[in-house]
Amino acid sequence: MSDDTLLRAGEVSTTLPCRTDAGLYYIGRIHTPWATRESCPRRGDSSGPDCVIEVDPRWAQALQGLAGRPQIQVLYWMHQARRDLVLQTPNHAGRTSGTFALRSPIRPNPIASSIVELVAVEGTRLTVRGLDCVDGTPLLDIKPA
Amino acid sequence: MSDDTLLRAGEVSTTLPCRTDAGLYYIGRIHTPWATRESCPRRGDSSGPDCVIEVDPRWAQALQGLAGRPQIQVLYWMHQARRDLVLQTPNHAGRTSGTFALRSPIRPNPIASSIVELVAVEGTRLTVRGLDCVDGTPLLDIKPA
Repeated sequence: MSDDTLLRAGEVSTTLPCRTDAGLYYIGRIHTPWATRESCPRRGDSSGPDCVIEVDPRWAQALQGLAGRPQIQVLYWMHQARRDLVLQTPNHAGRTSGTFALRSPIRPNPIASSIVELVAVEGTRLTVRGLDCVDGTPLLDIKPA
Repeated sequence: MSDDTLLRAGEVSTTLPCRTDAGLYYIGRIHTPWATRESCPRRGDSSGPDCVIEVDPRWAQALQGLAGRPQIQVLYWMHQARRDLVLQTPNHAGRTSGTFALRSPIRPNPIASSIVELVAVEGTRLTVRGLDCVDGTPLLDIKPA
């Protein structure tokens, strides 16, 4: 990402550890109408457009019992976000805050968590409303809300 | 973990992918009164005991702006949990469900998410109420609730 060495006013980066401590599996992909980070809504909204979660067939049985729930919690990996900022100045806020005082995708472990409306379940394809991420975002987990 | 090859009635495991897709940094540790998984409450409770989140000094500045908030969201890594079950039969439930229809720590990416009461912030040490995890659990993220 070309902007990963640029800092806005007030922003501070740290040196990331030289290795990671645990590994994640991508268990599916999220399809949304937003092709770029810049076009994503800042926060999901249940009156927003339908989005589709495609779960990898390896995990198909793990969906058993999910259909019919009104809401689910979705965890996903903000794979385009830098991970080294401790202080950030989001464009929309115009002031600087600590990373853990923001829900920005930029964080040491860019895991996003959203509670979304579950519209439909067809096989390994879940239609939901309330997501905010770019098309193609890797899925990490689904839990009852 | 010695019980990782045992399956309860109805449980089904899958073969995990041969490699992971992304890496996590442990950004601190969580200290709780529960030394073993068996002694942990099934779900955190804000009337439960104080627990302490120790954030790694590398991320100290990232806490700026967090003190004074009544609640925070904490993500942590259930490092003792197996990751290969698609159907599970939790002891407390007595019936079998898909992994994604349960909030069990056993899941492909054992990331737990809890909303907890923020009691105090002293430097990189956060006192919170409402956690449910074993002493020494790795911390992944802190967000405003």
